[in-house]
Amino acid sequence: MQNPNVSVDCVVFGFDGQKLNVLLIEQEDFGQACRFALPGDHLEEEEDLDQSAARVLRELTGLSGLYLQQCGTFGDPSRVKDPKDLPWLTHVRKDPTARVITIAYYALVKMTDFNLLASSFAARAFWHDANEIPRLAFDHNMIFDQALSTLRRELSELRVGFELLPNKFTLSQMQAVHEAILNSNFDKRNFRKKALNDQWVVALDEKQTGVVHKPARLYTRNLERAQN
Amino acid sequence: MQNPNVSVDCVVFGFDGQKLNVLLIEQEDFGQACRFALPGDHLEEEEDLDQSAARVLRELTGLSGLYLQQCGTFGDPSRVKDPKDLPWLTHVRKDPTARVITIAYYALVKMTDFNLLASSFAARAFWHDANEIPRLAFDHNMIFDQALSTLRRELSELRVGFELLPNKFTLSQMQAVHEAILNSNFDKRNFRKKALNDQWVVALDEKQTGVVHKPARLYTRNLERAQN
Repeated sequence: MQNPNVSVDCVVFGFDGQKLNVLLIEQEDFGQACRFALPGDHLEEEEDLDQSAARVLRELTGLSGLYLQQCGTFGDPSRVKDPKDLPWLTHVRKDPTARVITIAYYALVKMTDFNLLASSFAARAFWHDANEIPRLAFDHNMIFDQALSTLRRELSELRVGFELLPNKFTLSQMQAVHEAILNSNFDKRNFRKKALNDQWVVALDEKQTGVVHKPARLYTRNLERAQN
Repeated sequence: MQNPNVSVDCVVFGFDGQKLNVLLIEQEDFGQACRFALPGDHLEEEEDLDQSAARVLRELTGLSGLYLQQCGTFGDPSRVKDPKDLPWLTHVRKDPTARVITIAYYALVKMTDFNLLASSFAARAFWHDANEIPRLAFDHNMIFDQALSTLRRELSELRVGFELLPNKFTLSQMQAVHEAILNSNFDKRNFRKKALNDQWVVALDEKQTGVVHKPARLYTRNLERAQN
């Protein structure tokens, strides 16, 4: 048996203060209609999986040390054998019919922290509304779905989400993050109750400054709670 | 670059009614001290990842359809390059220095449902106390640790655990499952409160039969709750 190729693919969720977006790349289409995909690349010889995903992200954002987590490995023998993908594969791969196993990662970033860059694997990268994903190459729609449900689960246990907030934040800012990721609206009182009762956050003896409206109380992450 | 080998490894947790165990295999030791490992095998040509893990489990237990879930992929370039593993690799692999990327799965089974079988990849399989794992081959101790923490997380959200109970169970039986997996003791009243307040289970209008002590009320899984 010939060994399969191994790649990583990254589902990068970006928050702009209001809405959840996902980072897509445009692949050269070789006469096909416009072709979108998740950013990813083949694993290099001496590279660990996490390093490989971090490299993909670094090429697109210029940033290192972003929150990045595995969310599943996809290895269906037919996952890169859809006729829709063949023209592109024929142009870019030595063996376009070779099996590819891909390790999926997801990341969560503030979109305001960086600009998107071109990379070795993508001429153009762009943000797209995470609630209206177009048809993607290969099984990337399935990978996206799994990443989104992983993100939502992690959020509901408050394992992620704080990456998108300043160190000191208001409960309204925190609610905006949760509403964007879950694509729904919460009752303000219930959200506050949950955040405070479950002790995910700690109230500070400080209020917002420099706002025109009545300044709101500031909170910070309860790091003791986060360790359990 | 030469493509890496790809394998699956399974962390099979078994519950005997009291304690949590894990299924280990003994690898032929070729003059070394006794060599233990997690059961696993190389991926076959036309096999999906889930199918491959299910095959490993079927060979060891004779059972299909067991609860089986990915819990991480391990691909450190040096993960099979420890000198302790070289003699074994030299005996069984054509290229003992080839990189191997492994997809880890965990399973949760009732030990009373089956007997262990020999398999193509293990002359002997046996149960071992999950709280006292010996030194294992390759990075299998790390894989075990990750599987155990995944299992514990899933248990705390009640996504797993019911596999180990009959359809109708007492809260004491449920508590025994949780205590075994978390290796700790809970206060009976608090455990009951949590199970009932969070509506993970539904009380039935039935009691145990055929027991010498005072028969306890029976409960069943709240399937509506499980779907969220």
